[in-house]
Amino acid sequence: MTTARRDTYTPDSLLAVAVTVFNERGYDGTSMEHLSRAAGISKSSIYHHVSGKEELLRRAVSRALDGLFGILDEEGARTGPAEQRLEYVTRRMVHVLTDELPYVTLLLRVRGNTGTERWALERRRDFDHRVAALLAEAAADGEVREDIEGRLATRLVFGLINSIVEWYRPGHGSGQDEIADAVVGLVFGGLRREHAA
Amino acid sequence: MTTARRDTYTPDSLLAVAVTVFNERGYDGTSMEHLSRAAGISKSSIYHHVSGKEELLRRAVSRALDGLFGILDEEGARTGPAEQRLEYVTRRMVHVLTDELPYVTLLLRVRGNTGTERWALERRRDFDHRVAALLAEAAADGEVREDIEGRLATRLVFGLINSIVEWYRPGHGSGQDEIADAVVGLVFGGLRREHAA
Repeated sequence: MTTARRDTYTPDSLLAVAVTVFNERGYDGTSMEHLSRAAGISKSSIYHHVSGKEELLRRAVSRALDGLFGILDEEGARTGPAEQRLEYVTRRMVHVLTDELPYVTLLLRVRGNTGTERWALERRRDFDHRVAALLAEAAADGEVREDIEGRLATRLVFGLINSIVEWYRPGHGSGQDEIADAVVGLVFGGLRREHAA
Repeated sequence: MTTARRDTYTPDSLLAVAVTVFNERGYDGTSMEHLSRAAGISKSSIYHHVSGKEELLRRAVSRALDGLFGILDEEGARTGPAEQRLEYVTRRMVHVLTDELPYVTLLLRVRGNTGTERWALERRRDFDHRVAALLAEAAADGEVREDIEGRLATRLVFGLINSIVEWYRPGHGSGQDEIADAVVGLVFGGLRREHAA
């Protein structure tokens, strides 16, 4: 027996429930029945809001992607020397990832079995390419070292930033600004202390 | 009907099959039936080799952990200034990760539902602490910047290195040495080009 509650969900609050379930069980492992149980409303009530779980996935990953692409339209990403824009984007990525933690987590776990997943992977690749282009521009300006191949450097930097979803918990341990400072410090300056010549 | 083949497995070759299945289906999602089908031998033949899937998991993650802990016993990790030992360990981690790719991938995905998984997580934490201690020693020597808190720095560096399992494929794209050079260059020197003063 399902204990039905009144359906007072908004699109956002239903999405928040769905994303939690997707992240716990995996998207493939989640059925409408699981969503119905987690939300405490019937499956037909869920169908009143969305066409099915794929629409919930699309909305969830769109929220993460809109956050990431939104960075590229911000003033700090559009004006100034490429290396400063790259630093700006790196810092803001940490903020979007931590602000939209469950949505970005889901985006990073998408594997590509459905049309929506393949679309999400393609949008992620687009974003990666935009950042890689910025890195290439900074290298051409002579502001970024050229001994690390651009695609490899981009992968490593994304790997570092994306790994934050594995351990970041809002309100526990390091905060957003501390993490963003550490990421920018590490990615651009490295761990080694610079000694006066 | 299972097409049974003669059981010519060695402990290592059976482990290689099991790790592939664990990485594809997840450890929780893998049954002895799945292992039997993938190996092409009966379940009772598998029980001739091991007590069950948890023993296969333990052997698989042990192989990854032995590789990682083995680094700490090597000459380069034991002698010299802390910062050089830390660089040595970072470089060797990339090699172990790429040499033992499926085993390290499995280790990184362990979540802690069984005794073996909890044991593996604890051993991972031990390894992280050993590397964090090396970082602290290098910071105390004044060779590593102190404005990034040690635990946070360790997490970010591990995140960067561990993310390599997501895209590294032997024989495709960047090779082990190129990746190891890039990781060491990025982690210690950062992306920013140093200009002559």
